[in-house]
Amino acid sequence: TWKMLIVAMCMALLGCLQAQEPQGHVSIILLGATGDLAKKYLWQGLFQLYLDEAGKGHSFSFHGAALTAPKQGQELMAKALESLSCPKDMAPSHCAERKDQFLQLSQYRQLKTTEDYQALSKDIEGQIQHRGLREAGRIFYFSVPPFAYADIARNINSSCRPGPGAWLRVVLEKPFGHDYLSAQQLATELRSFFQEEEMYRVDHYLGKQAVAQILPFRDQNRKVLDSLWNRHHVERVEIVVKERVDAAGRTSFYEEYGVIRDILQNHLTEILTLVAMELPHNVSNVEAVLQHKLQVFQALRGLQKGSAVVGQYQTYSEQVRRELQKPDSFHSLTPTFAGILVHIDNLRWEGVPFILMSGKALDERVGYVRILFKNRAYCIQSEKHWVTAQSQCLPRQIVFHIGHGDLGSPAMLVSRNLFRPSLPPESWMEMEDQPELRLFGRPLSDYYAYSPVRERDAYSILLSHIFHCRKDSFITTENLLASWVFWTPVLDSLAREVPRLYPGGAENGHLLDFEFSGGQLSFSQQQLEQLLPGPGSAPVPSDFQVLRAKYRDSPLISAWPEELISKLADDIEATAVRAVRRFGKFHLALSGGSSPVALFQQLAMGHYGFPWAHTHLWLVDERCVPLSDPESNFQGLQAHLLQHIRVPYYNIHPMPVHLHQRLCAEEDQGTQIYASEISALVTNSSFDLVLLGMGTDGHTASLFPQSPAGLDGEQPVVLTKSPSRPHLRMSLSLPLINRAKKVAVLVMGRVKREITLLVSRVGHEPKKWPISGVLPSSGQLVWYMDYEAFLG
Amino acid sequence: TWKMLIVAMCMALLGCLQAQEPQGHVSIILLGATGDLAKKYLWQGLFQLYLDEAGKGHSFSFHGAALTAPKQGQELMAKALESLSCPKDMAPSHCAERKDQFLQLSQYRQLKTTEDYQALSKDIEGQIQHRGLREAGRIFYFSVPPFAYADIARNINSSCRPGPGAWLRVVLEKPFGHDYLSAQQLATELRSFFQEEEMYRVDHYLGKQAVAQILPFRDQNRKVLDSLWNRHHVERVEIVVKERVDAAGRTSFYEEYGVIRDILQNHLTEILTLVAMELPHNVSNVEAVLQHKLQVFQALRGLQKGSAVVGQYQTYSEQVRRELQKPDSFHSLTPTFAGILVHIDNLRWEGVPFILMSGKALDERVGYVRILFKNRAYCIQSEKHWVTAQSQCLPRQIVFHIGHGDLGSPAMLVSRNLFRPSLPPESWMEMEDQPELRLFGRPLSDYYAYSPVRERDAYSILLSHIFHCRKDSFITTENLLASWVFWTPVLDSLAREVPRLYPGGAENGHLLDFEFSGGQLSFSQQQLEQLLPGPGSAPVPSDFQVLRAKYRDSPLISAWPEELISKLADDIEATAVRAVRRFGKFHLALSGGSSPVALFQQLAMGHYGFPWAHTHLWLVDERCVPLSDPESNFQGLQAHLLQHIRVPYYNIHPMPVHLHQRLCAEEDQGTQIYASEISALVTNSSFDLVLLGMGTDGHTASLFPQSPAGLDGEQPVVLTKSPSRPHLRMSLSLPLINRAKKVAVLVMGRVKREITLLVSRVGHEPKKWPISGVLPSSGQLVWYMDYEAFLG
Repeated sequence: TWKMLIVAMCMALLGCLQAQEPQGHVSIILLGATGDLAKKYLWQGLFQLYLDEAGKGHSFSFHGAALTAPKQGQELMAKALESLSCPKDMAPSHCAERKDQFLQLSQYRQLKTTEDYQALSKDIEGQIQHRGLREAGRIFYFSVPPFAYADIARNINSSCRPGPGAWLRVVLEKPFGHDYLSAQQLATELRSFFQEEEMYRVDHYLGKQAVAQILPFRDQNRKVLDSLWNRHHVERVEIVVKERVDAAGRTSFYEEYGVIRDILQNHLTEILTLVAMELPHNVSNVEAVLQHKLQVFQALRGLQKGSAVVGQYQTYSEQVRRELQKPDSFHSLTPTFAGILVHIDNLRWEGVPFILMSGKALDERVGYVRILFKNRAYCIQSEKHWVTAQSQCLPRQIVFHIGHGDLGSPAMLVSRNLFRPSLPPESWMEMEDQPELRLFGRPLSDYYAYSPVRERDAYSILLSHIFHCRKDSFITTENLLASWVFWTPVLDSLAREVPRLYPGGAENGHLLDFEFSGGQLSFSQQQLEQLLPGPGSAPVPSDFQVLRAKYRDSPLISAWPEELISKLADDIEATAVRAVRRFGKFHLALSGGSSPVALFQQLAMGHYGFPWAHTHLWLVDERCVPLSDPESNFQGLQAHLLQHIRVPYYNIHPMPVHLHQRLCAEEDQGTQIYASEISALVTNSSFDLVLLGMGTDGHTASLFPQSPAGLDGEQPVVLTKSPSRPHLRMSLSLPLINRAKKVAVLVMGRVKREITLLVSRVGHEPKKWPISGVLPSSGQLVWYMDYEAFLG
Repeated sequence: TWKMLIVAMCMALLGCLQAQEPQGHVSIILLGATGDLAKKYLWQGLFQLYLDEAGKGHSFSFHGAALTAPKQGQELMAKALESLSCPKDMAPSHCAERKDQFLQLSQYRQLKTTEDYQALSKDIEGQIQHRGLREAGRIFYFSVPPFAYADIARNINSSCRPGPGAWLRVVLEKPFGHDYLSAQQLATELRSFFQEEEMYRVDHYLGKQAVAQILPFRDQNRKVLDSLWNRHHVERVEIVVKERVDAAGRTSFYEEYGVIRDILQNHLTEILTLVAMELPHNVSNVEAVLQHKLQVFQALRGLQKGSAVVGQYQTYSEQVRRELQKPDSFHSLTPTFAGILVHIDNLRWEGVPFILMSGKALDERVGYVRILFKNRAYCIQSEKHWVTAQSQCLPRQIVFHIGHGDLGSPAMLVSRNLFRPSLPPESWMEMEDQPELRLFGRPLSDYYAYSPVRERDAYSILLSHIFHCRKDSFITTENLLASWVFWTPVLDSLAREVPRLYPGGAENGHLLDFEFSGGQLSFSQQQLEQLLPGPGSAPVPSDFQVLRAKYRDSPLISAWPEELISKLADDIEATAVRAVRRFGKFHLALSGGSSPVALFQQLAMGHYGFPWAHTHLWLVDERCVPLSDPESNFQGLQAHLLQHIRVPYYNIHPMPVHLHQRLCAEEDQGTQIYASEISALVTNSSFDLVLLGMGTDGHTASLFPQSPAGLDGEQPVVLTKSPSRPHLRMSLSLPLINRAKKVAVLVMGRVKREITLLVSRVGHEPKKWPISGVLPSSGQLVWYMDYEAFLG
């Protein structure tokens, strides 16, 4: 594509193709040179870069920069540089010498005003000229808070670009926004100063050795993994970062972000893409890797509130109150723990749960990616005779151990009954057994286990990648925005969710364990009590009961939503079983909308005795859109019910709203066709059960107030007009509905409270409130209302 | 139904309703009274029955019978009775007294001639009269080889029936036939002498305490199991009987039967039905239990050769040669080990593997039923902190431990993280922990573990059930035949299969471990060499090759039927995957008829990677009958493919042969409707793949010789006339077919030989041989012919 072409061209231009790059002088400017990150990792990383690269043709200069005045800054920086260390195998004298050279090349400067930046650029140019060098490029590393980005970026762009033939690279640290919108704004802003190719967004997890090994591992073991790395063989994937520390001292940051923005949206999502992506033919093709990562985002199934469980350690709110001077009444809703269930809807991964989990104040510090394979074996011998490397009944797993935990270091583990992996021996070596150590349910000796020959810090790896222009270890703008597109909806829907409180550490016990079924996640243990009431926490319906009463002179069943749906599903099944027993078939007409979705799911998952093979499914109403349109009522039926059960094709009767490639054209006679289908198959045109809903305007089926069609008359099926889009509808008529043997009206949610009250008082006025016209002539009418709709 | 009614009436009549049964004298005649089974179990069982029942109103007499002459028989029987034992808690003096009473009531008699039987009956009547008793009934226990059944049955029927008002029960021991046919013959023969209600076919596994507990356990824990006992929660079910002994000394029997007939067809299958059946509302409703068992058989997916792995211990053939005086060249093919994968195609169990396994000369003796639940949990804490009863990440299982093994006794095990089961405390008690004991991957302490308060022998339980008329513990004729219907095809197809040889005992190592994927079972380890070649082993098509050649200048693929279908299915999947990758969808047009059925099944069962969600299914042709008619091509597609896969409803495109409740009426414009649907959805009206067949008259699709419609012209879809019924058809036209990107023609069976030969020689003569007009204008044509069609 043109995009790839341009990128390739730019890369060549910007010096990415090492082989052809003319060597020269590289200036590295570390912004925030006296900050924590710089002190802890970045200076050491730069020193490592110097050790690795100096002497290969390039010359270097290192510029520490900050807002601090020159003298004080100089001192602070000198302090930071004191603790630089050399690789273990380097002789001390040699080390001292190299360190000295590095210090010679490093200087501090205050960067505050535009003039400061201009001066910096001039100085660099002067030095290069003075020394008779050619300029290769400049790296600006933004180790500063994001609010400072724009200002610095503007100054670099206007004053610090190198001359023609030399490249510019700017390195950015997260957070890259707070949600899709803010990330997009920030990206747009940055793009006004820099080319995409000039920006390196760091996710330092991509520099961790086990993470950086994911793609090479998949590549080097491609032959055996090809058949295993898919939904047929993978049981689940766990991507986990557990922390023992809490957020104390950092709440001003943490309260804004929470665990999902802090860990899941970036680190764990990046890892997910590395595990799930289609492996490019050539994994060192940077552009192919980036494109394949983006394809994973496209295949991700949207997250819902039910895809997440969230928690907060008990002392968090107190820490926030203390650190941020909040009143005693303040309770935070920021999650410090989250478990997320991700599904990838493509051929490779459909149905495989990807579990993303991270939290603070947990029992241990550890990070890993675990691919657990399905056990599809039966082992004949008693388990005491199983041989680890041969038994297919022992767990089979591949673990990219990011670090910490009982192992205490990065590692690669592959179960011995899986295969002996191929790993580059210059960077990974087999570990010695530690007999006491159990990992993921098995002793260490059950694995082919490898650790890095030399443990390297993520930043030193990433700095090397920046220097070598390896953009696949960084977050492109497209990648970043795709991730926010994925995460923003669930973050929004969790914003008012009360997290489960947990005590922290080993005391958490099984409180935070969670389970998945269908696409939903939930905590394994019912919570007995909320230890501290969250502010928005609703009263939990633990004192459930089904209420039986009358409504409009017909039986009313009322309960909390879950019990109501469960009762309705049971009643429908009982009606179905009776009908099939008596007549050999069951004619069920269903409404669309959101309330029945839970009912469909309940029927699909819990009702094994339902006589689906003898059930005919009809639609009560339909929107005039193609059947496969997400707006179609039939599409809801398909997604939530039909795809889970076995109804013969010819027992399914969607409304013919899409004949001759047109939508509800009068001349296609869809209403007559449906009516004659009903009359041909349903004895006496009397459905065994019709399920209706009730709109806030009193409409039912697609029969609307002030629109006469279908309220009376001879036509069993009618076209009607809805006040909301899509306007055109097809609907069963009131007279046809009223021929049914049973009519159930399902009404749920607080939003229905008003109309429920109103309709309880009106008489037979279908023209004003179509629902009031529902009165089966010889059948039974039952109302199913949840407490919120009925009691408000 | 009338059948249930009659059974119920008979039961009342025959004294099954204990409450209403007038008490009286019961005579029990044990045929084969001096045989092994009698000595080992039956006399003891009868004594137990006497201890349990005497004194509750009935009186008893026990008649040992055999062919042996009276004096010698008397002695042998007396010897067998010497070792009778009382329950442990009975005082020795009391025991001696009861034993003495029992011996008093027991006598030996020779039963050989019709006169012997007449005399027996007279004696019974005489005694009863003499003692002034009323006769309640007679039990004849056939502890004799099956070849003796007919003769004995005839004699009993003609000479030993009790008078009116008293019942007759005959008890039969397996084997009940050798396959469906022989079982049916035996059943018919027995039915000529006895009513169904009079016969009790013993499967002694149904009397084993853990097996007998399956239904009561499911009933008593119904509330919690209701949500768990289904495909959403069960990972797999294992039904296993392992033996350490081999068949030495019994080869004359074993060589005829083998492990499948000996253990799987009866014991394991009965257990399967108890686990899988829908639980009747009232589990003590005998008739409901029997009916629900039969429903399981109806839902069983047919077994194929690939559903089984078989083995034979290495010394077996030698034992057979020695015991049966066979020549040195003789090698037996009888399996002494079998693993079978059973699938149940109903809503509750779809997709759950039921593994049935049994074998001789294995490493241990043990029997169990294990229900392993899915692990859908993620546990937050490091595993060393997991609490057994709370962690959902530890294995969750329910085990009905039939006996032996490391436990050494019957037991009920329920993982503590599952639930605390409810068991009748009078018969099951909690076991004490045995710290060293690990069962199914976990220490005993991980389970709620129960053992019988009193271990009871299966036969004593069954004798009590016979006495109390509990027919649900026995094999009805319907049940027996249903089981043979299930097993006979796979037994036939395994008859010439060479079993894998295994050394026996712990030395088997992982040699017999097996794995399942799709519907297929296979050994986990490739076998390096067959240690001894089987003699009758047909030339297994291990040297199979797909023949590639040309036919009518297009590629021809030829093979044996199974391989051909498998190759075609693979090719279709590859085409589908490519199409979806490139265009996002795959348009497949399928023919009806019998050849594609095997293809449909192959695609449905074996091809998980098939992109069904993006596939559109079209019909090549259709008979003008309603879609649900068994003659409809669509109905074949529905039954063999659609019901097993998940294609969205609106991607399925049956031909509109049944519009406005009429069949293929010109004025309904079905052909135009289908054509416009194709043109709207299929780019360029060019299907990705069209699957055709070829008739013996050279027709293809529903385009027939000497009938011009559809052979050329503009109409993409046409109505045609077939020479055979139903005459009226709808078909894609040749021009439309020839627009396809790929056309595959599948031709199978010897009956096609002649036309295959003919068509190979003719040119382009579609009016004579429509198939000769198939020539995609820019697509590819491939012929798939089995050897019989191609080579004759």
